[in-house]
Amino acid sequence: MQGVQETALKQSQIQDDLESWVDRYREDASKGKCAAYIPALAKANPEQLGICVIGQDGSKAVAGNWETAFTLQSISKVISFIAACIHHGISYVLQRVDVEPTGDAFDSMIRLELHKPGRPFNPMINAGAITVSSLLEGDSTEDKFDSLTSLIESMTGRQHQINEEVYKSEWKTAHRNRALAHYLTATGFLGCPAEEALEVYIRQCSIEVTTEDIAMIGLVLAHDGYHPLRQQQLFSKEIARLTKALMVTCGMYNASGNFAAFVGVPAKSGVSGGIMAAVPPRGRKGETPFGDGCGIGVYGPAIDQYGNSVAGTALLGQIAGAWDLSIY
Amino acid sequence: MQGVQETALKQSQIQDDLESWVDRYREDASKGKCAAYIPALAKANPEQLGICVIGQDGSKAVAGNWETAFTLQSISKVISFIAACIHHGISYVLQRVDVEPTGDAFDSMIRLELHKPGRPFNPMINAGAITVSSLLEGDSTEDKFDSLTSLIESMTGRQHQINEEVYKSEWKTAHRNRALAHYLTATGFLGCPAEEALEVYIRQCSIEVTTEDIAMIGLVLAHDGYHPLRQQQLFSKEIARLTKALMVTCGMYNASGNFAAFVGVPAKSGVSGGIMAAVPPRGRKGETPFGDGCGIGVYGPAIDQYGNSVAGTALLGQIAGAWDLSIY
Amino acid sequence: MQGVQETALKQSQIQDDLESWVDRYREDASKGKCAAYIPALAKANPEQLGICVIGQDGSKAVAGNWETAFTLQSISKVISFIAACIHHGISYVLQRVDVEPTGDAFDSMIRLELHKPGRPFNPMINAGAITVSSLLEGDSTEDKFDSLTSLIESMTGRQHQINEEVYKSEWKTAHRNRALAHYLTATGFLGCPAEEALEVYIRQCSIEVTTEDIAMIGLVLAHDGYHPLRQQQLFSKEIARLTKALMVTCGMYNASGNFAAFVGVPAKSGVSGGIMAAVPPRGRKGETPFGDGCGIGVYGPAIDQYGNSVAGTALLGQIAGAWDLSIY
Amino acid sequence: MQGVQETALKQSQIQDDLESWVDRYREDASKGKCAAYIPALAKANPEQLGICVIGQDGSKAVAGNWETAFTLQSISKVISFIAACIHHGISYVLQRVDVEPTGDAFDSMIRLELHKPGRPFNPMINAGAITVSSLLEGDSTEDKFDSLTSLIESMTGRQHQINEEVYKSEWKTAHRNRALAHYLTATGFLGCPAEEALEVYIRQCSIEVTTEDIAMIGLVLAHDGYHPLRQQQLFSKEIARLTKALMVTCGMYNASGNFAAFVGVPAKSGVSGGIMAAVPPRGRKGETPFGDGCGIGVYGPAIDQYGNSVAGTALLGQIAGAWDLSIY
Repeated sequence: MQGVQETALKQSQIQDDLESWVDRYREDASKGKCAAYIPALAKANPEQLGICVIGQDGSKAVAGNWETAFTLQSISKVISFIAACIHHGISYVLQRVDVEPTGDAFDSMIRLELHKPGRPFNPMINAGAITVSSLLEGDSTEDKFDSLTSLIESMTGRQHQINEEVYKSEWKTAHRNRALAHYLTATGFLGCPAEEALEVYIRQCSIEVTTEDIAMIGLVLAHDGYHPLRQQQLFSKEIARLTKALMVTCGMYNASGNFAAFVGVPAKSGVSGGIMAAVPPRGRKGETPFGDGCGIGVYGPAIDQYGNSVAGTALLGQIAGAWDLSIY
Repeated sequence: MQGVQETALKQSQIQDDLESWVDRYREDASKGKCAAYIPALAKANPEQLGICVIGQDGSKAVAGNWETAFTLQSISKVISFIAACIHHGISYVLQRVDVEPTGDAFDSMIRLELHKPGRPFNPMINAGAITVSSLLEGDSTEDKFDSLTSLIESMTGRQHQINEEVYKSEWKTAHRNRALAHYLTATGFLGCPAEEALEVYIRQCSIEVTTEDIAMIGLVLAHDGYHPLRQQQLFSKEIARLTKALMVTCGMYNASGNFAAFVGVPAKSGVSGGIMAAVPPRGRKGETPFGDGCGIGVYGPAIDQYGNSVAGTALLGQIAGAWDLSIY
Repeated sequence: MQGVQETALKQSQIQDDLESWVDRYREDASKGKCAAYIPALAKANPEQLGICVIGQDGSKAVAGNWETAFTLQSISKVISFIAACIHHGISYVLQRVDVEPTGDAFDSMIRLELHKPGRPFNPMINAGAITVSSLLEGDSTEDKFDSLTSLIESMTGRQHQINEEVYKSEWKTAHRNRALAHYLTATGFLGCPAEEALEVYIRQCSIEVTTEDIAMIGLVLAHDGYHPLRQQQLFSKEIARLTKALMVTCGMYNASGNFAAFVGVPAKSGVSGGIMAAVPPRGRKGETPFGDGCGIGVYGPAIDQYGNSVAGTALLGQIAGAWDLSIY
Repeated sequence: MQGVQETALKQSQIQDDLESWVDRYREDASKGKCAAYIPALAKANPEQLGICVIGQDGSKAVAGNWETAFTLQSISKVISFIAACIHHGISYVLQRVDVEPTGDAFDSMIRLELHKPGRPFNPMINAGAITVSSLLEGDSTEDKFDSLTSLIESMTGRQHQINEEVYKSEWKTAHRNRALAHYLTATGFLGCPAEEALEVYIRQCSIEVTTEDIAMIGLVLAHDGYHPLRQQQLFSKEIARLTKALMVTCGMYNASGNFAAFVGVPAKSGVSGGIMAAVPPRGRKGETPFGDGCGIGVYGPAIDQYGNSVAGTALLGQIAGAWDLSIY
């Protein structure tokens, strides 16, 4: 009985901490701004900040604008990579895209040209992500997209819609991504025509989620592909581990090194301001929350020069420090 | 009493496994060759393979050529980085060298020129390591070098010598590193004259160790700077975590992404064929060896195109898989 | 009377020389091969070699396969540049494309990304040429293309057709050029939609000519935009000079420096094997043919790694040396 | 008699024009500034502008600060290239350095790394010039330097000194050039030790000249290696032509394309503000000055972002336009 009470107290303490940290780091939003190159994203209120943490037993701690809907953007790259690996097996996918970090911006083409024959460096840069989208199961844009949303829904437990305004906005301004897709066709890495791959990619970027949804995805990853609430293995441990490794080395665009150094958990960000983190169980002594691992979803639409949520990154750094979440 | 016996049995099982794996992966050496660009290294017998694993309680498992002496080479970059952070504090050091991975070769200059004003991308590439060496405590080459060896000796518990033949060989052929050092002087990042920084750097590369020595260093890193046998905090948790994060994102040259993906422990390699790994305590269920963390030293002088021991990497992959050492 | 006879003798000597040189350099074709990346070009007989030289007075010397039809390919870049300058004025065009040589391959993207904001380096690389095509007069693909052919026909004095097989072949395999066009849309340099610019560009590449046609174009350029046979100024001296300067610094892809060094006349090559050269009047003492300037057309479909006709380049080097045509 | 008078009148007209143009373009100096990275150069009065033109018959037209002494800097690259070609023959020299233009800055290293095995792209960028200096005749720094000054003195007809202050200033701050020299040692292109090559190179940059001296050098180049006043062939026509071609494609740093396009004569600039131009005889109708070719020396120490004299380039553009000097 006492144990339950203590846990309840702890839960409320966690909740209080999250709320006070959200208040504190919300101010950091002023150091960034909403993604301007996608007009529909530019409209978001930059001062929003929300978080949702879900533990192995389904316990949930939330604060701030955790219920606000936003689009997955680059967070979708993680999920399409998992989906492609489920469908083709890891080794097939890695023949088309490597897993090495680069120091280049997310939409860079340089390495495609410098490093013949041009296999994209990793699935977290746009060139690699478009390649991965072209490998999704299905013979049509529709089918490929459906195979991706099925995977997402198996993790979040609910259906997701596309934000049509964001989708149209991105499709219209996707000149660099279109250039990448055609370049990848030239080098032979795409699994379907350029325009099809591009459509799948942009649709997946436009899928609407909340911090709770991506916290659930992070939770499944944290548990090596096992969904602890549904008690089901959704994909293999090998795919989960590979994916988390990729998130560490490449997940935060070309600020991944700094994020690894100062936050220290596998995470993937999107220019809409979302960050999805997967925290594996820890073996350290001492009582800190979520010691059995957790998934974290953060939303804060003001992003920095690299494309990462400014307030969201700061908030995650605070939590990782206070709760000793680092994987190192 | 029974417990002790069981542990002894387990110890012997670990030992047997290590020996059989060393035998198996020794063959992989034929896929690589000894570093040719440093003449003194080219002489090593490429078929050597040795390993030493040290646990929190000092328990030690060894196999193969674990007692062979070799030079630290790039493994020294990790230690000089720690030494510079101890002396100057993390933030000072990071003003001179970033912590972002690159997709470039270890001796590349390109990014120094492309990314004005040229702060080296990370301390694990030569440009960054020479910068770090220039920041070591002391006003002379001698003093800087001594401050580094002191740190090493506090971890390994014994004194280390330079391999004079390797040192002279590297000094004479260090044209690219000399170029880097002068370039860094031009861009203003060195803390001492180019030739001095270069001398410290090449000397540190020539320090002789065994797999046991680097396993000890790995053990201290695994325990966040705490030496579990000497029961002493040698450097701060912050420095240790930052260093392990760096090892993950940049420690295996431009194969770091693949190493993270398929081995999954913080590690640093050197072209002499050494690999030092720091395995933090794990929180997973199930009984696997060294669950409280360990340090691992590997030596296998035949290296691949990236500069990493071929057999050593394969052996570590085997161990990490079998013992579930991955941090993800 | 004697003068006429002498000239006639000289004419016949020129003719004899051309024929013997064509025979000699035809063998050089074996060092190259027909462009493979455009299937329709790969079919050409690589041993062809033809030349046509036209002097100020219309005198014409020819040898070998001078009457064979081939497609303009990159030679069209010179003419579209002239057409765009006629329409918009030089300064407008140069706001969209620079005139600096690069050391990169013709279809490279690297510099677009490295040198923000990405104005193409010059109109002779594909990125620059696609930009120039987008600036041609007219509101439709059709009109833009017609404004280009009008200019060509004013110089050659005859109508030109597209080689439909080549056009279709290029359109289908134009992935890199399509990537460039979309990239240029992203950076804002195109004067019309990407697909339109691309269509104009690929159509202009497919225009069929003979060595006589491009010799005529070279002749007009040699005389600063003045057509000596039609006695008409077709475009300004400023445009002609600028164009010839561009041909010297960028006309032979990334072998332009060597061509300048060892041939020394303004020239533009195409991957179909054509080379168009514009030889200005010379001021040197001594009697060499075509001292008042000439246009030269060469055709030899076996190309080298840079995209230049192997035999054609050698033949031009021979002629430039023997007749002292160098502009230096 | 009348002819002489007319010529005298013309001479005086030329002189008047030069003077008025110098007055006009002197103002352009304010758009640039003196080279700051070499402290001794930064002291020059930026408003100076002087010119000297020397014709085939030795006739000389001068204006402004034509008698001011300045250091050769990169103009020396042209002369050391000639000297190396005289000593080794063209083909030997071109095995060590190519003749292709690049779009990179003069002190760039990027291409050395990108284009294995790293032969410098041309002798006009620092990497190429240091390589050329290493190939000069002689077994010591002294001898190599003397072989260069002998060639200079054979053209200018007088002895030249080094400006010791500039030399020391450059030696002390030559970090990037030192880096290049060591890099070139690593790639095997230098003909002598790095420090020796560097010393020769920096000494040659410090040689003091006036506009008259470099006009004389330009005159010899204009006449294909023949000294029209001394009536002596100093080096072969082949070397002269190759050198002028190089000046056109690479002589004005990475503004060479624009200079070719809008000035149109072979020229080489130095960061001290000197420009040496070699104008070959022209074959155009119409009476313009120096139709038989000339050498031009310009001095204007305020330089632009590329390293070229701002006022000097504008002045040369004016003269080339008014006198129709373009080689195209």
